Formats: sequence, C-alpha cells, structure tokens
Amino acid sequence: MDIKKAFGVVLKKERERIEITQIDLAGRCDIDKETISLYERGLRQPTLKTLLKLADALNVEAEYLVTEVKKRLTSLE
Amino acid sequence: MDIKKAFGVVLKKERERIEITQIDLAGRCDIDKETISLYERGLRQPTLKTLLKLADALNVEAEYLVTEVKKRLTSLE
Repeated sequence: MDIKKAFGVVLKKERERIEITQIDLAGRCDIDKETISLYERGLRQPTLKTLLKLADALNVEAEYLVTEVKKRLTSLE
Repeated sequence: MDIKKAFGVVLKKERERIEITQIDLAGRCDIDKETISLYERGLRQPTLKTLLKLADALNVEAEYLVTEVKKRLTSLE
C-alpha cells in the first residue's frame, strides 16, 4: 500500500470512529471538503501542517496518525 | 514559531546529531540538496512521504520528528 492510500484509510477510519462527516471534518480544520475527499480516496497526501490540523480536528495525536500509516505501509494485506 | 521553521530546526538538529552534511542526507533519501536546505531554513515544509523518508535517513522514527516539531510550536521561546 502506498502512502497516499495508507493515509486515506487511516483518515477515514478515524473520522468514522468519531462519527463525523467529511463536511464536519472540513469545517473543524479549515480544509475544504473536496480535499478531505481526495485524502480519503488516497489521491493526495498531506503536508506536515495539514497532518497536524487533521489530528487536532480528529482529537488524536499526529504521532498516532503516523504510526497507523506506517502499520499499513508495512502490512502484507 | 511556525511549522516550517520548527521543522527546519528539528531537521538540522537531527542531521548534525549524526554528523552528516546536507549532501549526505540528500544522498540517503533521494531528495536534492537544495530541497534539504529549504527545509532547514524553514522555507518549505515536507509532505508525509518526505517526512517518513527523512526520518529513515536520520535513523529516527517519524513520530519522534513530529513530537519535536510540536514541542517547538508550543514553546514560548
């Protein structure tokens, strides 16, 4: 799995965990909904700044998101 | 301190810790030297993919780099 796809999977999982929509998430972090959708579909990767903003909006640590992405990169699934 | 500057400080500190030059670091992670210089001067921020590549090249975890950046963002110094 490449980084964009791994990040997309993690972002969607965390968003659904707290039961908010892409529009809700976009509103929480001042990123437009279309960009959230690109991330979740594995079509774009975030910058460090965006990673920190998304983590805040999801109520998780950015380090946790990185760990989850790395798990998926090394997974054989 | 903004994210670009915080990342630049962290990157330079970690590079100097293992006593390699910007050219050495560039060679280790297939990023050109000019880009490494932009990062260290706080003029560009990395994507998630680049963050992971730089962490590998520096022999640290990407999570550690994120933690160090966050420390500097919240510092009053």
